[in-house]
Amino acid sequence: MNKVHVKASTKEYDVTIGTGLDVGSLLSEVHKICKIMLVSDDTVYGLYGKKTEDSLKTAGFEVFSFVFEHGEKSKNISVAEKLMIEMTEKGITKIDLLLALGGGVVGDLTGFAASVYLRGMDFVQVPTTLLAAVDSSVGGKTAVDLPNGKNLVGAFHQPVAVFCDVDSFQSLPAEIYSDGMAEAVKYGMIYDSDLFGQIENGTISDEDLVKRSVEIKAEVVEKDEFDKGPRHILNFGHTLGHAIETLSGYSIGHGSGVAMGMAVLGAVYLSEEDSARLNAVLKKYGLYNIPSYDIHETAVLAKVDKKAHGNLIRAVLPVAIGEVKLQDVTVEEWEEILRKGIGRLS
Amino acid sequence: MNKVHVKASTKEYDVTIGTGLDVGSLLSEVHKICKIMLVSDDTVYGLYGKKTEDSLKTAGFEVFSFVFEHGEKSKNISVAEKLMIEMTEKGITKIDLLLALGGGVVGDLTGFAASVYLRGMDFVQVPTTLLAAVDSSVGGKTAVDLPNGKNLVGAFHQPVAVFCDVDSFQSLPAEIYSDGMAEAVKYGMIYDSDLFGQIENGTISDEDLVKRSVEIKAEVVEKDEFDKGPRHILNFGHTLGHAIETLSGYSIGHGSGVAMGMAVLGAVYLSEEDSARLNAVLKKYGLYNIPSYDIHETAVLAKVDKKAHGNLIRAVLPVAIGEVKLQDVTVEEWEEILRKGIGRLS
Repeated sequence: MNKVHVKASTKEYDVTIGTGLDVGSLLSEVHKICKIMLVSDDTVYGLYGKKTEDSLKTAGFEVFSFVFEHGEKSKNISVAEKLMIEMTEKGITKIDLLLALGGGVVGDLTGFAASVYLRGMDFVQVPTTLLAAVDSSVGGKTAVDLPNGKNLVGAFHQPVAVFCDVDSFQSLPAEIYSDGMAEAVKYGMIYDSDLFGQIENGTISDEDLVKRSVEIKAEVVEKDEFDKGPRHILNFGHTLGHAIETLSGYSIGHGSGVAMGMAVLGAVYLSEEDSARLNAVLKKYGLYNIPSYDIHETAVLAKVDKKAHGNLIRAVLPVAIGEVKLQDVTVEEWEEILRKGIGRLS
Repeated sequence: MNKVHVKASTKEYDVTIGTGLDVGSLLSEVHKICKIMLVSDDTVYGLYGKKTEDSLKTAGFEVFSFVFEHGEKSKNISVAEKLMIEMTEKGITKIDLLLALGGGVVGDLTGFAASVYLRGMDFVQVPTTLLAAVDSSVGGKTAVDLPNGKNLVGAFHQPVAVFCDVDSFQSLPAEIYSDGMAEAVKYGMIYDSDLFGQIENGTISDEDLVKRSVEIKAEVVEKDEFDKGPRHILNFGHTLGHAIETLSGYSIGHGSGVAMGMAVLGAVYLSEEDSARLNAVLKKYGLYNIPSYDIHETAVLAKVDKKAHGNLIRAVLPVAIGEVKLQDVTVEEWEEILRKGIGRLS
């Protein structure tokens, strides 16, 4: 069992990574006994709902559950409202806890509800996908989508604890596992060429992969909790990625979108050798698919990306494997970059 | 023209109070030129919408407007979502501004949208009612309602400026003006017996009434921005008040609810003389109406009040005119207090 300590200005907490974790017992060490509203989707709840409820009850918590239909389409304001109405009906107050059991959709939506219910209450992340474990469960970004864009409504709200049982990755379909691998590759690309090398060689365990990814995320988030500047590097591949996800009606996973975003920028800014290494790793995990969407449309969508300010897009551009730089570009320049990158990959 | 400086930990800003204010010109002194989404309800927009838009445009701002149906029933999550969709369509980004032109409903909803849109952007309050001027426009509490309770969803998010033109109070129906007076009386009751005396004697101007009320609110908020303890005194009369508002389907105004809450607690905890003085001031403004709701039901609703924690209600109890104390009571004790107070008033 590994612990990574995250030191945000608003809250400090541990990310516990291991196998066979007893969530109830671990949680009782960091939070007093209270009511818990467990939030999950129908897929994950079917796999781990009962086991998690039992573990929490055995530790003494009073447990209620709110289960919604799986998929990004549920990550909206009206599902969040339904959850919060249920919370008032169960008498959940500020001293109680929300617990997100699932992937990124569950974690983001639960975190958003925790950030606004009674103007803010504590919550716990129990990520069950590699993607959620290395990305959304740490760092305090919570959100729901609007019909015309992803994550456009949200808050910064850190969890009080994160428990990641890598055993749960065993139940993931290959493409969902790969989705998470795209974010792990991203950490290698922006921060750690050694991690990139280990992924490339397939010499890293799931537990170490999560640990190193969370360490990098924690370091970046500690420097810039509220996403004013340095934290933007975590967005590498995401501006194009989000646009692709939106245009596909969320039929393309987050990781696949990000992978395409990285490959396109890599083709423009990296050496041929580095670009080829990146593409090879993405291919290995089935993440290399040249985007076929209208380039102008993806560029226009970048304007409603949260990193946009006025007419400028905050671009994260690769320098070499392990290094990126931030640069503001106009929507027109962004479209030109995408056109060039997609052209080179095709 | 008066200015009250509010020094919150997350933001410092001025509340400008005067007559014939040129909002566009004043705003351009504290914020760079940008896009503004003006938010208002149909009543207020009809009175001051065009004038405010013109003032903002003359100062150089690009102005869009979002107008919704007046009334507490609009202060919900789906109206907030409609506003935010409109914002994405108008290309509003983090460097732009939301501007709330109206009473508490408009200010609370606009502030909530500003707090969560793209995880937070700046907003400006232009209160047009006495109630909003002395209460909701200052202090950074933003919220929308759930079907089963008021202000249950929200955030702490300070405005960048507040502009209060007391001329706008001239357009208020008497009962809406009185609604605001209830909150001004509250400031006297919790903090300033001199202010109470001036209201009692009718010797204070609207401008001074707003100035002194905002000064008190700013002092209290500066001590406890996130409502952990000392700020709870601002809630005097509100726990019963909110319950009454909810039970009446919001046909009873916020000020009237608070007034009833203060009178009931006054009857239990104040000297006969002080209780009589409080009741006389409330009667003068048509705010003295003995609640006829089921006492048990109002007590049960107190459990979902944001100040509730576990089974305890954070009660604000009057000691004398100008002084209150905080005390945790059980729901059963709270019901008993209400029963006693209502009995004495009847």
